[in-house]
Amino acid sequence: MRKGIVNNSLFTPVEKEIALVEKTIKHTSQVEYPWLNELLDYVVDSGGKRIRPALTLLCGKFHNYDLNLLIPMAAGVELLHTATLVHDDTIDKSEKRRGRPTASNVWGSGIAILVGDYVFAQSAELVARTGNLRVIRLFAGTLMALCTGELSQNLHSYNPDQTRHNYFKRIEQKTASLFSTATESAGILSQAPEKDIQALRSYGHNLGIAFQITDDILDFIADEEKLGKPVGSDLIQGTMTLPSILLKEWYPDDNPINDIFKNNGNKGDNLRSLELAVDMIMNSEIITECYHIANTFVSNAHQAIRHFPDNECKRSLLEIADHAVARQL
Amino acid sequence: MRKGIVNNSLFTPVEKEIALVEKTIKHTSQVEYPWLNELLDYVVDSGGKRIRPALTLLCGKFHNYDLNLLIPMAAGVELLHTATLVHDDTIDKSEKRRGRPTASNVWGSGIAILVGDYVFAQSAELVARTGNLRVIRLFAGTLMALCTGELSQNLHSYNPDQTRHNYFKRIEQKTASLFSTATESAGILSQAPEKDIQALRSYGHNLGIAFQITDDILDFIADEEKLGKPVGSDLIQGTMTLPSILLKEWYPDDNPINDIFKNNGNKGDNLRSLELAVDMIMNSEIITECYHIANTFVSNAHQAIRHFPDNECKRSLLEIADHAVARQL
Repeated sequence: MRKGIVNNSLFTPVEKEIALVEKTIKHTSQVEYPWLNELLDYVVDSGGKRIRPALTLLCGKFHNYDLNLLIPMAAGVELLHTATLVHDDTIDKSEKRRGRPTASNVWGSGIAILVGDYVFAQSAELVARTGNLRVIRLFAGTLMALCTGELSQNLHSYNPDQTRHNYFKRIEQKTASLFSTATESAGILSQAPEKDIQALRSYGHNLGIAFQITDDILDFIADEEKLGKPVGSDLIQGTMTLPSILLKEWYPDDNPINDIFKNNGNKGDNLRSLELAVDMIMNSEIITECYHIANTFVSNAHQAIRHFPDNECKRSLLEIADHAVARQL
Repeated sequence: MRKGIVNNSLFTPVEKEIALVEKTIKHTSQVEYPWLNELLDYVVDSGGKRIRPALTLLCGKFHNYDLNLLIPMAAGVELLHTATLVHDDTIDKSEKRRGRPTASNVWGSGIAILVGDYVFAQSAELVARTGNLRVIRLFAGTLMALCTGELSQNLHSYNPDQTRHNYFKRIEQKTASLFSTATESAGILSQAPEKDIQALRSYGHNLGIAFQITDDILDFIADEEKLGKPVGSDLIQGTMTLPSILLKEWYPDDNPINDIFKNNGNKGDNLRSLELAVDMIMNSEIITECYHIANTFVSNAHQAIRHFPDNECKRSLLEIADHAVARQL
């Protein structure tokens, strides 16, 4: 059974380097205060699959592969991701992530906010180590995009008029922006020609969109136990994703979404409406259509790097894109 | 009556440039989403006194005064300060700051966390505009120091064994680090010789410590109405500052701090113990001693820039240091 997006063999070409990224991440949490060490160790060692740093390392392999630049960049990208997860869990009051209590659950929301901030700073410091102003500015812009996407989701929750356009804009910001920064920065730091930098950026962007659409599909169709949260949890939290947007598009006058969103989801019988929405999504062609759309982004990702030389790194990148959609969880 | 640290005439030598910093800050909140504009306008236009950007501008005047570098740096420093205030208010569940409802009070803690993150990213982007890797790394390190100081305060609250050493370490991190970054970065960006960069850093550090000690004194002696919070609020929240640390040092066996801190401050009669602590502090030489200590840092700040040419900017810097301690609020 595949776990997560990554069948780890996909990372084989950069396995050793990923170990160096892990070491760098571990090292950054060794600070002079034992209490801070403990906090940092807990949040950075969260069992993540390290897909983003793997992408940076793989994408750096096509040109001037300089680990002195790529390792801190890859570690910085991963820590930016870590920091956003710590804050997201705090905002959503999530009790667990990947089977472990969240930082806000263990230490309270105040400490979790500050630890997230600290990890943001660490990620910025790592990226600054590259000494490359272009990736430093790209990185700051990425954090703005991530926040804009999350803010948009929070501010527009329980709004039944969310459209496909809003959705794609939001997932570009909250997910694809960090994937594309992971891949584009590798191009910049390996001194790739501009057209290859843009190709890597496009690969990362399309992979990120496909990845997020798949996450949003799995929120409806995955096994509740494996998912670790109730089926349809996005919808119950007021967030419309591609499946529920298609439901609204296909059945504009006859769907339960308005009922679910009434009173910001605080209506006694909205669980019945949610069940109805899940049924309508499962018993239509909506999921098939969502996978079809996700696969167009996978094709775009493949297409973006079609002119790259055929080697094991390129094959990894192509397979990672396939797996982003084919995964069960 | 002076309001806050700054008699605004102290900023006269850089008055026009502060207006440019304001414009830059305003401009960064003009983004493509009206809802985000509104949030950003609210948090960046919070009636702050802009002392940190004024310090950057004043300190840049002694060497190569390049506004293309100093304006984004000064704006970045101010926005970093703004972001930390947004998160601090969220953590402390503060209802008001400077007489206005806090962002977390208006929009809820989730939105406030994300807006704070966004403003962090903006501040990093502004500093990256200087194109100077040394200040970029200094800046990332400053955010880590700020978080470490706040984390230390939060994790050690209601611990009656807080010492003078812990206190000075903490206020160096949570307050002085941003003051010294505001002044040191000006030296770096104005291409000052290294010894002048270190002199400016030392000036900012000592000013910051004096500033925080004074804040901590005022928490005990200021008029409750002007303060906008109850007298002794640090102590009631479990934080020992210089006055309460001296109380503990001077009366190790006969002080009410252990009583206040029992059960994390959740003891019915801890308000009576707090009154007793405030009385003991006011009816001893503790406040005089605290002011004496604060003034040694003011002297250090003066001393740090003694070799700088005598001009209106130097006079401003010296007076700002004096006012940091002499202010009523």
